[in-house]
Amino acid sequence: DHIPLSHIRYSEQEMTRRSQEFYELLNQRRSVRFISDEQVPMEVIDNVIRAAGTAPSGAHTEPWTFVVVKDPDVKHKVREIIEEEEEINYRKRMGNRWVADLKKLRTNWIKEYLDSAPILILIFKQVHGFTASGKRKTHYYNEVSVSIACGFLLAALQNAGLVTVTTTPLNCGPRLRVLLDRPTNEKLLMLLPVGYPSKEATVPDLRRKPLDQIMVTV
Amino acid sequence: DHIPLSHIRYSEQEMTRRSQEFYELLNQRRSVRFISDEQVPMEVIDNVIRAAGTAPSGAHTEPWTFVVVKDPDVKHKVREIIEEEEEINYRKRMGNRWVADLKKLRTNWIKEYLDSAPILILIFKQVHGFTASGKRKTHYYNEVSVSIACGFLLAALQNAGLVTVTTTPLNCGPRLRVLLDRPTNEKLLMLLPVGYPSKEATVPDLRRKPLDQIMVTV
Ligand SMILES: Cc1cc2nc3c(=O)[nH]c(=O)nc-3n(C[C@H](O)[C@H](O)[C@H](O)COP(=O)(O)O)c2cc1C
Ligand SMILES: Cc1cc2nc3c(=O)[nH]c(=O)nc-3n(C[C@H](O)[C@H](O)[C@H](O)COP(=O)(O)O)c2cc1C
Repeated sequence: DHIPLSHIRYSEQEMTRRSQEFYELLNQRRSVRFISDEQVPMEVIDNVIRAAGTAPSGAHTEPWTFVVVKDPDVKHKVREIIEEEEEINYRKRMGNRWVADLKKLRTNWIKEYLDSAPILILIFKQVHGFTASGKRKTHYYNEVSVSIACGFLLAALQNAGLVTVTTTPLNCGPRLRVLLDRPTNEKLLMLLPVGYPSKEATVPDLRRKPLDQIMVTV
Repeated sequence: DHIPLSHIRYSEQEMTRRSQEFYELLNQRRSVRFISDEQVPMEVIDNVIRAAGTAPSGAHTEPWTFVVVKDPDVKHKVREIIEEEEEINYRKRMGNRWVADLKKLRTNWIKEYLDSAPILILIFKQVHGFTASGKRKTHYYNEVSVSIACGFLLAALQNAGLVTVTTTPLNCGPRLRVLLDRPTNEKLLMLLPVGYPSKEATVPDLRRKPLDQIMVTV
């Protein structure tokens, strides 16, 4: 039950070119909070989720569920839950420093993109699974594994020319789980509104750290 | 300090093709535990880490440090620490069920790839940062952010034709942090040995869940 690895090897020149182009592609990615209501091809959504599902996972548990919300009424209910909780988050739960740290992003509890984006992807981590006989099956490192899969998903969206913003709606998980009828072993990790940017979309003028500030060679 | 988004839009046909090809590229990725000692171009390593550094992060904290180990003596010291701790993990800390769940992968505490791989990338999460005046700066969702960045890194390695295995060396973090001289606000999250597969590399014959087992549409 072990098989030979199939592997494609490129020339050094080709590797350098490919790695450079991939960096440039991903470096164009920005978190976009202004999303147009234009529909996106569902085949592309299927493919980006297929790509996410190729991620590694602790002991190959694949502890993820991707809930794709297209129904406008359900999207609106998601928005109501999130705006209600986020207003409390900003006013009370997050504290002054957190709110100050977000100032440059100009975010608040109003999330129009939850109605306007044609697709919301809610990513649940399965904190445990079930064996054939119904017993609990441990999902080692489930949050790390699902976050890696979200990395694959974000890269796939960028590659396809779609935009999103990575969000972790604080304190909204339980209500969204019930709304979407997910079982109790699943916990919301992330919500990605997906679509095309709206015409007037702007982004904070952020810089990324250069290589020498994130890499150390020994 | 907010600027217009620059965005490349593809035709629907082009989006579908790109998303399909990206899925196929990532679906070829496997965790490879047999790595050749052949050197890899350092420019490619720089580019895959640059790609990882484009990941989103909570409040743009960029809470990651990528330590690239090339020195054979340091690699060997990393191996000694990990094999010592992993032997205790397998024999005592992980418990019978965890060890049984790993059986199909045929992993154990002997990690030859830690010597043979030309490069080890150790990824540290900065659990907090520092303000200009030396105070603690909170790094919101630092583990999720760094895991997403690792997702970008794994995708970039696959795109470049290099192989790795995602590992989370249990209980080795503190000793490896001291060995590599990293500050106390950094905690080891992952270790990736990177290189070309060795000629006789095999992989467990695993299947991935099909789309309808990981995606739900509402
Ligand atoms: C968070 C995480 C931790 C992992 N830890 C280890 C590890 O310590 N040792 C190892 O050999 N593989 C480890 N793996 C690799 C998984 O066993 C592997 O991804 C899984 O079996 C699926 O195989 P694939 O990556 O070839 O698709 C880990 C994977 C993840 C995502
Ligand atoms: C784990 C995580 C949680 C985040 N949560 C939110 C959020 O709740 N709301 C939001 O508007 N942006 C959120 N972001 C997006 C970050 O603010 C954004 O990635 C960062 O400002 C860098 O900008 P960029 O993604 O355009 O590079 C989150 C990002 C990550 C990785």
